[in-house]
Parts: sequence; C-alpha cells; structure tokens
Amino acid sequence: MSGTHSLDSFVEAARRDVDEALDRWLPTRPAGPPRLAAAMRYSLFAGGKRFRPVLALAAADAVANAHEDARRLALPAACALEMIHTYSLIHDDLPAMDNDTLRRGRPTAHVVYGEGLAILAGDALLTEAFALLAREPAVDAPAVHGRKLRTIALVSSAAGSSGMVGGQVLDLALERRPPDEDDAASALADVHARKTGALIRAAAGAGALMAGAAEGALAAIDDYATELGLCFQIVDDVLDVEGAAKDLGKTAGKDAVAGKLTYPALYGLEESKRRARACVERAHATLAREGLAGRLPAIATWVLERKK
Amino acid sequence: MSGTHSLDSFVEAARRDVDEALDRWLPTRPAGPPRLAAAMRYSLFAGGKRFRPVLALAAADAVANAHEDARRLALPAACALEMIHTYSLIHDDLPAMDNDTLRRGRPTAHVVYGEGLAILAGDALLTEAFALLAREPAVDAPAVHGRKLRTIALVSSAAGSSGMVGGQVLDLALERRPPDEDDAASALADVHARKTGALIRAAAGAGALMAGAAEGALAAIDDYATELGLCFQIVDDVLDVEGAAKDLGKTAGKDAVAGKLTYPALYGLEESKRRARACVERAHATLAREGLAGRLPAIATWVLERKK
Repeated sequence: MSGTHSLDSFVEAARRDVDEALDRWLPTRPAGPPRLAAAMRYSLFAGGKRFRPVLALAAADAVANAHEDARRLALPAACALEMIHTYSLIHDDLPAMDNDTLRRGRPTAHVVYGEGLAILAGDALLTEAFALLAREPAVDAPAVHGRKLRTIALVSSAAGSSGMVGGQVLDLALERRPPDEDDAASALADVHARKTGALIRAAAGAGALMAGAAEGALAAIDDYATELGLCFQIVDDVLDVEGAAKDLGKTAGKDAVAGKLTYPALYGLEESKRRARACVERAHATLAREGLAGRLPAIATWVLERKK
Repeated sequence: MSGTHSLDSFVEAARRDVDEALDRWLPTRPAGPPRLAAAMRYSLFAGGKRFRPVLALAAADAVANAHEDARRLALPAACALEMIHTYSLIHDDLPAMDNDTLRRGRPTAHVVYGEGLAILAGDALLTEAFALLAREPAVDAPAVHGRKLRTIALVSSAAGSSGMVGGQVLDLALERRPPDEDDAASALADVHARKTGALIRAAAGAGALMAGAAEGALAAIDDYATELGLCFQIVDDVLDVEGAAKDLGKTAGKDAVAGKLTYPALYGLEESKRRARACVERAHATLAREGLAGRLPAIATWVLERKK
C-alpha cells in the first residue's frame, strides 16, 4: 500500500496479526482430511492484500473505547471476512463460473486440487468462517454475545442471496445476456454493490460492531464503506484496462476481451477515474461529519491510488 | 413414516411447521435475483423427508421446560439444518462430485439450472442458514443469545472441514483409491460419521440446545443421535441394495455398480441389518437411562424400519 508512513505501518501490523490468527484458527493438523486443509490454506495464504480484514481492524480502532481491546474483539471477524472472500474467489474461478486458471500469479485452486476439492474447500472456508464468528473472541459476556450475533447476521446477509452470492448470479446472467444500453448503468451498479460492495461494507461494519460502536458511528461507517466499495470496484476496472499482466498477477484487459460490462467500458477511463475520486471525497466527508478518523481516511485514499 | 399413530401425527405436524417456516424465511420475492431464489427453492422443496428438522423438533420437545415455547425456539435451527442438508445434496450431485442427474425422482439442480447457478444456490442456502440461526427466534434475552451462539458453533463445526465437508472429501478420495481390506471398516465408519452422522447429531443437539436442555440431557441426546446417524446410513446402504428404483427416486444399486464402499459390501446384508438394530437398541437404552422420551425412541425405530 502507498500513502502515509502511518498507514503503511498500520497495514503491515494488521496483516501480520491477521495472518497469524488465520494460521492459528484454521486447522493445520486438522481433525478432517489433510488434503482439504491444504486446499483451504493454498487459497487463503496466496498473497492476498487482506483488504477486508485491514478495513475491519481500522474500523474497530476508529470506534474503540478505552475499556476494551478493540483489536482482540474484531480480529476474528476480520479473519472470517477474509475466509469468506477467499471462498468466493475459489468458487468464482471455477470452470462453471469465470473459468480462471490464474489468480494472484498462481494457478487457481481447481487447477491444483481438482474441481471437486476446490468446491469443497470453498464450502469449508465459508462454514468455518461462521464457526469462528460464533466461537471467538471467547468472551462470555452478554454484551459480546449480542455483538457476535449481530455480526453473524450482518456478515451472512452481506454474503448471501441478496448480497455477494446474488451479485455473482447477476454477473453470470449479464455475461450471457448483456443489458440494453438504457439498463447498463443500473445493472453495473447493482452487480458491484452486491458482488464486492456488500462484503466490504460488512467488513467495516463487523469490525466496528465487535468493537462496540454506537449506532451513529455504525451508520457513518456503513456510508463510508459503501463509497469505499464502489471506489474499489471502479479502480479494479480501471487497473484491468491500464495494468500490465505481471503487476496484477492475472491476465490484464481480460474484461475488455470478454466484452464485460465495466466502468471504463460504460463511462470511459477519465470519467471512471473522476467517479472514483468523488467516492473518496464523499467517504472522507462522511467520516469528518461523524468525527471518525484513525486510518479510515487514509485507507480510502489508498484504495483510490493503488496500482494493483 | 411408519410406526405408531402418535409418531405419524407428530411428524406430519412438524413437517408442516418446517415447510411453512422455510417458505416464510426463504426469500420468495427476494432482494436478490429471482432465478437464484428459484434454484434454492427447487431443491429445498423437492419432497425431502425433513428428517433432520423433525429430529431437531423432537429433541426440543423431549427436553422442553414449562416456561418456554420449545417449538418456537427450535424451529429456526430445524429449518437451518434442512437448508444445510439441501446445500450439501446440491453440491454432492455436481458433475465434479458424484455426478448424479436424478434426486428424489427429479432432475438435480445443475441439470435444471446449470452448474454455475447450482453451485451458487448451494452457497446461498449455506449462508442463509447461518443468517437464520443468528436472526431467529428474535428473542432479545441473554439466555437465548447464548444458546444461539452455541447452536451456531455446533452446527458450523458439524457442517465444516472436520465434519460434513470433510466426510465428502474422504468419500471422494475413497472412490478414487479404495482402501486396503484392513482399513476398509474404519474408513467406512469415519466417512459416514462425518458425512451424514455429524449433521444428524447437530440437528438433535441444536433442537435440544435451543430448547434450553441441561448438559446431561445434551450429552445423552448426542449419544442417541450418534447411534441414530449410524443406523440411518446402514439402512440407506441396505435400501440401495434392496430397494427398487421407483421407490427410492434414484438409481437403485448404484453404489454396488460404482463399486462403492458400503455396509452390505463390507459386512453382508444380514450382518448390516443386525448392526442397524443394535444401534437402535443402544439409542433406546441411552434415552431410557437419562429419562428422555417423547418421540425420540419412535424416531429411532422409524429410521430402522423405513422403506425409503
């Protein structure tokens, strides 16, 4: 990540915490089949940016109160979000979906482990994410129980049929039958709000919820994360056009080749970039209005300026 | 279901409650894509026996106290278990897994909706099951919060990498490389304890937990359900050999044709039946020891005597 030195060191520490926790919470010497654990870990430790967990921890820090360890409370949710994100990538890459053979510069899970085991590794990551949310942090206090249940409801709703899975269904349908020109803009916005936006909002929301955020702060963080998610997707689309294959670790310009509905295809490169900048400005304004800061503004700037 | 009149009417009422609740809790006019909702409902309302929800409600009744509505408390868990069971069938039927084109006498989900949507419908059912467990029953009391979290932990652990998904991975591996004769018995027991046994135990346990069972009763119900799950699987294998295609709604003798490791293949038909009877005797003894009754003994007898 680029940006201020302060963000760099925050992100580095957050990633270290998340990787260490994922390693601890995911069965290495499992009660289950070792090959399943290997497939789950292959995709989970594939050099992802850990964007969602970093965001969850930043949101937790931004609302932290003096009496509780916000990082400890939010870390399981941060890890669960990464597990759910990883499962979605494994399933999206399958031959029956996007049929991608390369992800982050490495062969995708089904290429390495076969289609059956890849599907099951995704299923297991999704299931274990909820196990983790229910189990950790192991604090037996009514207030924490209540937060955990709200977090599970938030995350499952964001990942489910009206959220992320619904977005992937819409995306598949659009590839098969592109929308009329009149409907293209709303179709594009709808797909991305669900497919990537919902989980990004859930990451920020879950981190804040677990850290005990007040309702006003929760609402502001949700508004912020909505802008952030849209910016993230626009920048993804722009990078697909501008980026080189080796930087992105996947085939650049693939969307354009596939005739996919993207922001640059619909609005052009310059207008897409303008819209991404406008998202970040609105995200900053939302935080300022609620008096929230910490690393959240810098994360928005990073999402805008990232090169991969 | 055969058996006493009392069990028949209990099961009929339980199924009606479950079907009505599933219909209410699953998005018909969803915020998400209608085609996804249709695929989810196609498999969920495919004439299943509702064995796991019936068991969950029977366990809840068996431990019910006078102050709470056990049925209302356990119904969401009963439905969630059926959603998870259904997702597992959809994914198991996929070409990359068992490649089944017929289930309960109807074309499987991927035959009707395509492989991509079938995978996503399974993903959505699994995810929405956890949303349901977190949300319902909407009782804002610390005791119920605590039960819900324990239920989510129990169910996700049973469905995850060391439980049901792990069992399917082991099953796939066994098909590709059958075990040595010495290892066959333990491999068979291990696969089934995970693949079907874990979720049956979770169904009984979740029903009892949500109804507020004491620890002793929970342990007894888990022992009971362990025997029940094993009996269920042995009878399934026996029916596959003995059953006719039209009764089972799937290709009879398919396991034998595929050279699958089954109880009749390993022990012969008569010894398999003897073992199923022994399970039920132990299940009954466990309940008697703890003074638990209600419909649980009759359910065990039904599992033994069922013809489909």
